[in-house]
Amino acid sequence: MAKRLGKQTIVFEKDVALLNSACCVGKDEGNGPLAKTFDKVFYDEYIGQKTYEAAESVLQKEAIGEVLKKENLTPNDIDIAIMGDLLDQSIASTFAIKDFSIPHFSVFSACSASALGLGIGAVLVENGAVNLAICVASSHFCTAERQFRFPLNYGSKRTPNSQRTVTGAGAFLLSSQKNAPKIRAVTFGKVKDYDITDANNMGAAMAPAAADVIKAFLQDSGKKPDEYDLILTGDLGVIGSKLVIKLLQKEGIDISNRHDDCGLMIFDLEDEKSAAGGSGCGCSASVFAGHIMRKLKSGEIKKMLFCATGALLSPTSQNQGLSIPSIAHLLEIEGVKND
Amino acid sequence: MAKRLGKQTIVFEKDVALLNSACCVGKDEGNGPLAKTFDKVFYDEYIGQKTYEAAESVLQKEAIGEVLKKENLTPNDIDIAIMGDLLDQSIASTFAIKDFSIPHFSVFSACSASALGLGIGAVLVENGAVNLAICVASSHFCTAERQFRFPLNYGSKRTPNSQRTVTGAGAFLLSSQKNAPKIRAVTFGKVKDYDITDANNMGAAMAPAAADVIKAFLQDSGKKPDEYDLILTGDLGVIGSKLVIKLLQKEGIDISNRHDDCGLMIFDLEDEKSAAGGSGCGCSASVFAGHIMRKLKSGEIKKMLFCATGALLSPTSQNQGLSIPSIAHLLEIEGVKND
Repeated sequence: MAKRLGKQTIVFEKDVALLNSACCVGKDEGNGPLAKTFDKVFYDEYIGQKTYEAAESVLQKEAIGEVLKKENLTPNDIDIAIMGDLLDQSIASTFAIKDFSIPHFSVFSACSASALGLGIGAVLVENGAVNLAICVASSHFCTAERQFRFPLNYGSKRTPNSQRTVTGAGAFLLSSQKNAPKIRAVTFGKVKDYDITDANNMGAAMAPAAADVIKAFLQDSGKKPDEYDLILTGDLGVIGSKLVIKLLQKEGIDISNRHDDCGLMIFDLEDEKSAAGGSGCGCSASVFAGHIMRKLKSGEIKKMLFCATGALLSPTSQNQGLSIPSIAHLLEIEGVKND
Repeated sequence: MAKRLGKQTIVFEKDVALLNSACCVGKDEGNGPLAKTFDKVFYDEYIGQKTYEAAESVLQKEAIGEVLKKENLTPNDIDIAIMGDLLDQSIASTFAIKDFSIPHFSVFSACSASALGLGIGAVLVENGAVNLAICVASSHFCTAERQFRFPLNYGSKRTPNSQRTVTGAGAFLLSSQKNAPKIRAVTFGKVKDYDITDANNMGAAMAPAAADVIKAFLQDSGKKPDEYDLILTGDLGVIGSKLVIKLLQKEGIDISNRHDDCGLMIFDLEDEKSAAGGSGCGCSASVFAGHIMRKLKSGEIKKMLFCATGALLSPTSQNQGLSIPSIAHLLEIEGVKND
């Protein structure tokens, strides 16, 4: 049974455990600062498939396979697979899950799919509706470039503001088991639209949504930023990260000394091609499933907020000259206690 | 607190009420057999907007406005909006909800979005995670034709197998209130792929997924088809409806004398342009929100299964020559008791 706090926040009264996780990434991520935290690195962009879309599905399948292996489970043990990606009609997820025979649904929330899937999964687990859920999110640099910008073979020059879509997938197992990191609360965000129309500056488009949901959670729960070891946003990158800190400062909320962003962590920001940071559903999913989960399991992170952000544009809405509405979903997470 | 039955089914122990609903449709639907059951009919395909996509968002907004009005509620009373449509990156939903300031997420499950949204919403309500949820699904003939087939101005001839995408939206309010139809159980479906590649024959592609989830629910719950006044599929149309009955007969399950399909009900099937029936998220959403909800409220339907079906193709997967994987999600619903 969950309890509602304030207008937007859901607090769980029972334990919802992040039982385990796995992540698989591409070459650039595998050569980046978090190299050692990924379960598998694929150096071929096609991962042996005929299309990039099929390759993205393989990233998801491999992440699912890895996390099941860690817990000695089979697909038959899983009650629901909640998945998300950036592709039209979520085909990366559909073609990944179709051979697994697991009840399934996809969510669309752009790059915030990781936190959204975990939030919905947490409600299902706490309610007893499912015993074991798997939540997966992915993106692939080559599928995203073709769909949202230009096919890679055009050789277009990228703008300095543009973040690099992460090639990667993260998979998480949720259950009611005790000895694991826990999801304590969820705040589903609202769509925010600040009339930004530049699809190469998505960090700026998403920062207001992140600021809004962080503020909503803190108001609803009465908690303060300094209660958390880490306030982690999804993929605001260099520009959006500065902006979310500023926007919250205007509201009297200072997260500057405990904020980090998955998009700032996954690539070497000295490298021109990823200078503005990483993005994509696979960014927060693979950073959280790898680097962050290790720190939660070891107890190095005792309490954190994870706020994944999504830019809700489509190629059609861009071609029609519309703005980029954005959203962010937030999880309050507790690390394993070692006492 | 929900109870799991068998492998796939979630049974609610507390009441989850379909408090009220509303539906708004286009001209062809408004001139069809269910004309009197819709709250609003728009005779202009653009509904006064510049694009068909914006018109589809208006359908959703109007359905939300209507259902709130019926219950004398404001957007501020709603804890979560769960939405779904067929468009790339769910933009119909995003641009509909962005002015409402309601916490929100979108699901993607093609035409099964209506049942999926209600299923997830029901878990959130039963768990106490939200008090009032609104679930909305929409489609628009003109946005779907352009995206999945050809822009209308090409004047392409449609094949006799092809169903007509419904221009319509349905909105439902979920709460724990007593005196209303109830969602008693949910079965989230599995992705099924029978290697059908013809995007003009989606009823055939979706029928196996519908058969699979109906069979799963009956097995999990130990119930029989004759316990239900109605077993309603989403949008299998003429071809898929025959097929789902046959597929279940092969499994020893006879639903033939209580099966109907929203895609068979919404259009005049004598009319050449809709001879194979209706389809789209808006098909099951508007038929269920209008015609079926009336019968549930009056008690004419005492117990039914609602199984919305979705074809999980994308233009990209079609162009790559891939099959059309499908899915269906099922709700067990109880009408208002008059004794």
